[in-house]
Amino acid sequence: SVGHVALVGAGPGDPELLTLRAARLIGQAGVLVVDHLVSDGVLDLARPGAERIYVGKESGHHTLPQEEINALLVRLGREERQVVRLKGGDPYIFGRGGEEVEALLEAGISFEVVPGITAACGASAYAGIPLTHRDHARSVVFATGHRRAGQDALDWSVLARPQQTAVIYMGVGQLAAHCAALIDHGRGAATPAALVENATSPRQRVVTGTLETLPEIAAQAGIRPPALLIVGEVVSLAGRLQPTASRPAEAALAV
Amino acid sequence: SVGHVALVGAGPGDPELLTLRAARLIGQAGVLVVDHLVSDGVLDLARPGAERIYVGKESGHHTLPQEEINALLVRLGREERQVVRLKGGDPYIFGRGGEEVEALLEAGISFEVVPGITAACGASAYAGIPLTHRDHARSVVFATGHRRAGQDALDWSVLARPQQTAVIYMGVGQLAAHCAALIDHGRGAATPAALVENATSPRQRVVTGTLETLPEIAAQAGIRPPALLIVGEVVSLAGRLQPTASRPAEAALAV
Repeated sequence: SVGHVALVGAGPGDPELLTLRAARLIGQAGVLVVDHLVSDGVLDLARPGAERIYVGKESGHHTLPQEEINALLVRLGREERQVVRLKGGDPYIFGRGGEEVEALLEAGISFEVVPGITAACGASAYAGIPLTHRDHARSVVFATGHRRAGQDALDWSVLARPQQTAVIYMGVGQLAAHCAALIDHGRGAATPAALVENATSPRQRVVTGTLETLPEIAAQAGIRPPALLIVGEVVSLAGRLQPTASRPAEAALAV
Repeated sequence: SVGHVALVGAGPGDPELLTLRAARLIGQAGVLVVDHLVSDGVLDLARPGAERIYVGKESGHHTLPQEEINALLVRLGREERQVVRLKGGDPYIFGRGGEEVEALLEAGISFEVVPGITAACGASAYAGIPLTHRDHARSVVFATGHRRAGQDALDWSVLARPQQTAVIYMGVGQLAAHCAALIDHGRGAATPAALVENATSPRQRVVTGTLETLPEIAAQAGIRPPALLIVGEVVSLAGRLQPTASRPAEAALAV
């Protein structure tokens, strides 16, 4: 037997949004290396005897630095174990999966990558906000509000373009600044915008407003991370397209 | 009993990339309304007695116009049947799911939406191209090369931005024009670019080059739809990050 590391997208929260392949690999794993955003329901699919190592990453609160996570994966892979590295959403969208795979590759460890439902797609389906729409948005752009020290600001001129949906991951902390930047770069103050907290989980909450009003609405509702900011005309469909038979049942439009 | 329509993302091709929820709903469906890009392996999960209605959409070759698909879903929903509308990838990314849901809503038919792995995420994982990367791409934008008559051209100034990955769905037919437009709008001619044909299926092929060389390379390889164009520095990782234990086993870097 030889070690193998699977980087597995755990999806946005609802365990039923795991892929068949992710569920199978989780059930077979000897050891799971788990991010903060992976839900308990997902971990329930693991074998009772499987070891779990939490390396939780919260914005600004990395339990383990990325370099140590990389080294841990290499060490576990060398121990000839079946390792599943569980990452919230998709491993290759704001998951730093590329860095982990590069470390495994340099160490000569066998690996595979299993895509996951990224939070934007989960939030879109469960909140009733199509990311693209023939009449409203011909493209969609994903960016992250989390940035490392010294890194440039986001490319606001791109995110503020019309006829496009912009999704900003981890965008709660800087919500007012982000909305202001979008307006400064040409998006109308009346552009519909939504914040989706705990997308697809039983605790999902959605607040909607405009670029001008959303920061105040979100503050009053007490929206906290993890939450996605979705900006664009498609957000105006959110109330109407709310699924009539949504699971989890508690998921509702809060405002 | 009352009719219900589930819009279900069938993922990019590999049936193992279905979500648990999609697989469950497909297995329970009385009737499936199926797009062209849904793979046979996905349909194998349906009950033997389930009716299948193919409404295949190919670029420029809609077997059924969108309005008739909407009407069909409403009619089936009114027949008090369990309907699964299977769409390639994710229903809300270039899937026109919003239009179908609006039709159901107007008719008062109960519905739900199940997100799916969009082709860009499937291609990313199976071809070893992270869509974002701390060193190379802080955002990712999805656009579609398919446009209806009279519609504006793509927003090339956005797609050509640096430090970003651009993914163009259904981009084979206009590949040379798209690469030229990206160069015209400021992306360097040496920017790495890949075309992923039949992403995640056993017939997956990946060709890589630059914005300048890719059209010729793709023509020589005979790449045909469905294929995704991925543009950005992350493509330079494709050869190195190719999974060592990828399924389907035949998936390989063709060039």
